[in-house]
Amino acid sequence: MFLKNTWYVVCSSSDLTDKPLGRTICNERMVFYRDEHQHVAALEDFCPHRGAPLSLGFVKNGQLHCGYHGLVMGCEGRTVAMPGQRVKNFPEIRTFAAHEQYGFIWVWPGDPARADTALIPHLEWHNNPAWAYGGGLYHIQCDYRLMIDNLMDLTHETYVHANSIGQPEIDETPCETSVDGDRVVTSRRMYNIPAPPFWRMALRGNGLADDVPVDRWQICRFTPPSHIMIEVGVAHAGHGGYDAPDSHKVYSVVVDFLTPETETSMWYFWGMARKFKPDDAELTQSIREGQGKIFSEDLQMLERQQQNLTRHAGRRLLNLNIDAGGAHSRRVIERLLKTD
Amino acid sequence: MFLKNTWYVVCSSSDLTDKPLGRTICNERMVFYRDEHQHVAALEDFCPHRGAPLSLGFVKNGQLHCGYHGLVMGCEGRTVAMPGQRVKNFPEIRTFAAHEQYGFIWVWPGDPARADTALIPHLEWHNNPAWAYGGGLYHIQCDYRLMIDNLMDLTHETYVHANSIGQPEIDETPCETSVDGDRVVTSRRMYNIPAPPFWRMALRGNGLADDVPVDRWQICRFTPPSHIMIEVGVAHAGHGGYDAPDSHKVYSVVVDFLTPETETSMWYFWGMARKFKPDDAELTQSIREGQGKIFSEDLQMLERQQQNLTRHAGRRLLNLNIDAGGAHSRRVIERLLKTD
Amino acid sequence: MFLKNTWYVVCSSSDLTDKPLGRTICNERMVFYRDEHQHVAALEDFCPHRGAPLSLGFVKNGQLHCGYHGLVMGCEGRTVAMPGQRVKNFPEIRTFAAHEQYGFIWVWPGDPARADTALIPHLEWHNNPAWAYGGGLYHIQCDYRLMIDNLMDLTHETYVHANSIGQPEIDETPCETSVDGDRVVTSRRMYNIPAPPFWRMALRGNGLADDVPVDRWQICRFTPPSHIMIEVGVAHAGHGGYDAPDSHKVYSVVVDFLTPETETSMWYFWGMARKFKPDDAELTQSIREGQGKIFSEDLQMLERQQQNLTRHAGRRLLNLNIDAGGAHSRRVIERLLKTD
Repeated sequence: MFLKNTWYVVCSSSDLTDKPLGRTICNERMVFYRDEHQHVAALEDFCPHRGAPLSLGFVKNGQLHCGYHGLVMGCEGRTVAMPGQRVKNFPEIRTFAAHEQYGFIWVWPGDPARADTALIPHLEWHNNPAWAYGGGLYHIQCDYRLMIDNLMDLTHETYVHANSIGQPEIDETPCETSVDGDRVVTSRRMYNIPAPPFWRMALRGNGLADDVPVDRWQICRFTPPSHIMIEVGVAHAGHGGYDAPDSHKVYSVVVDFLTPETETSMWYFWGMARKFKPDDAELTQSIREGQGKIFSEDLQMLERQQQNLTRHAGRRLLNLNIDAGGAHSRRVIERLLKTD
Repeated sequence: MFLKNTWYVVCSSSDLTDKPLGRTICNERMVFYRDEHQHVAALEDFCPHRGAPLSLGFVKNGQLHCGYHGLVMGCEGRTVAMPGQRVKNFPEIRTFAAHEQYGFIWVWPGDPARADTALIPHLEWHNNPAWAYGGGLYHIQCDYRLMIDNLMDLTHETYVHANSIGQPEIDETPCETSVDGDRVVTSRRMYNIPAPPFWRMALRGNGLADDVPVDRWQICRFTPPSHIMIEVGVAHAGHGGYDAPDSHKVYSVVVDFLTPETETSMWYFWGMARKFKPDDAELTQSIREGQGKIFSEDLQMLERQQQNLTRHAGRRLLNLNIDAGGAHSRRVIERLLKTD
Repeated sequence: MFLKNTWYVVCSSSDLTDKPLGRTICNERMVFYRDEHQHVAALEDFCPHRGAPLSLGFVKNGQLHCGYHGLVMGCEGRTVAMPGQRVKNFPEIRTFAAHEQYGFIWVWPGDPARADTALIPHLEWHNNPAWAYGGGLYHIQCDYRLMIDNLMDLTHETYVHANSIGQPEIDETPCETSVDGDRVVTSRRMYNIPAPPFWRMALRGNGLADDVPVDRWQICRFTPPSHIMIEVGVAHAGHGGYDAPDSHKVYSVVVDFLTPETETSMWYFWGMARKFKPDDAELTQSIREGQGKIFSEDLQMLERQQQNLTRHAGRRLLNLNIDAGGAHSRRVIERLLKTD
């Protein structure tokens, strides 16, 4: 149910310090650390000596030491040394391809030989002075595909996020969904509507009037395995909407990386990259807090939905037009799973 | 193990406000709400769109709206509307017969066609100026039949409730048990004994001396599926006991509605209806607090007993004379289950 | 996986007061109490009446009363009395042999007829004015044999207890392991090394210089089922090490009684008996606190190791020279299990 030969986000770069980090991804317990060149290594979180988790150990001179009896594990999964032992014949442990790029640590849970860092999605806003970024992480007890459904159908904003980004015009405006190979896009454009509270805050943050009609857009882009970038924003009405000049709009990309933990749990990396007032750190913090609060409103719904689906396994659900984005994304995953 | 074609208490009337209420009863997840006529509706807690729990939604103009994507569900289990959708062919969800009466919401978890509100037990103390009522709810991790045993054998008061309503005279006085069709009655009458603390409080509350010998009675009445009304009280000794005039006694009915949640958990609605000083709200509150504290003393015992029985499934237990009330009640349930 | 016809520690003598104590040992739920002669009795924690746990009851005049309906249980597992009942034909419950000795309560979970108190290990430091003792209890979610491994291979001190008793010289010094019947001994002697912090504290506690080179010893003695006594200490270097006169050393025995609770959980009774400054209660308390802190450092490692092994059942682990103590101890248990 999840692709393994692909890149998933493990954590943000700053979360991997000089200590090892343990994390379960696609049902595999992994340990991550930085070697002597600060390159990221990823291994099975299992010491070949007695099965202790290596993530309880420590890193010294770029080498991972088991915290139980001091076995030194190499980034190739072969034991390098252990006090008083000949380690040549120690069994190997699994390794995973890992890579640091665009401010995140990425892992390829499948065959390391097939891992190609060129396949890591390009994040143009990273280290780009025209952009600012802020984000966070939620651990959610649901199948990651329920979150794909959620993000590829933003009509839920009207109900789940009624006081921040929801507004009835979302429901009233049909979305358009298209598929291009492995990519799915579902988009909605609304014209001459009031701006909801979150976007009023953003307009003010960009020095723009917040009490005039706006044009609003939502362009959700799914790429496998489960990355969803959503172009969002509002422009003062009548200046071209999505294509309005920067001086009349607020433009952002909602960044969503969904990393499966188990069949019914996931890591949700969320964030927002914006293309206005990139140097305003206070604004970055306001947006991050606002977004964190909004996105937390989905958690209970998703976890309770998962419980319902677990109780009623096999029960048929509806696939409406609004679900087309999620349905097509799931179909892409299904197709890719056949050759994964 | 539980009857389904019968009425169970869901909650007190005041607990069902203008928000939907989710509750699992007899292994079914249900959602309850009030329609535009304030009538109670009960549905499967499952949105036919994507399986979200409807109980996380909201009620507007007497209609239940799913909190995820705004589907409007009718009280007949058919979707009424959804923004931008034709809903005619949406699958139906299950409905349950529900009814509000005597200050409670009642549900019939079985076949709605067989639900007859005339079968709701008559609670004469409801809205009756001669009576006052106070009560509460406990959620207990045990088979509801362990609570039937508990309530149909009050010798446990001597041990579990030693400091409030227990006294050795309960143990020393045999009980009498009789069966009349589906009804089981087990009763005990004690004469010329000291009143235990709870009853001394009640005597004082009724303006009666609390330091004189009393006659005490306990008449436990089981009716299916799991309602147990217990006439309790004390009278100053020598005035006729149970039949003493109101001026010399305190007379109450302990009200117990047991609603199965799962095989090993239950909702326990407890309360006390009294026939003295009905207008004394402070006394109602004192009694409610006292009873709540007393009844909470049973919880650990019942939950640990359940754990023991789960570990030792099939192990034979004793059915003593004191257990006759519970044993006969269980037999009534067994018999009715054959045609449920 | 655990021996049943053997003695395990239940609790310290002072933990068994005038209340019954419930504890699961070797998968059996037991209740312990003191009879009218203050002798310890152990029974199945199951009232033959309705399955209530007897450990929720009370002890009166040395008799155990069920807290639900007052059944009085005798220490032979036969009901002695119950208010208003003839108890002659009540079914018996299981009894276990139990005994109080050397400051602990001991239980024999297997056949009581085979229980021989002469088999309780002799603890020479108990009530011996030349010795002082302090200890405690941890409840750990792991197979008790992981703790045997832990205690019979002290190289882990260098890593898990790096700031208290660990030092690189442990790793650098080979251990010697020998087997004599059911007894396993693994020992290590280090000469002319610095004393680590815990031992510097102990040296000061005994009025000795803490900044001079020491000789250090660790002699781990396993006896079935899972008792491990570890002679530990340091002497000022050059005075004979382990055999140095008392005036130049600090000598203690680490006392470890491992009592299986289930296949993956255990009770860990730990303590230290010392042969210096036995009357210094403050020192006893300092050592107990220090040891408690040190031993708590093992808990997370052991519990996470257990989780890893549960996930990877059957995966081969390494048996190195340092693991010889644990491996031989496990083999003794395996051999004894065949005739247990």
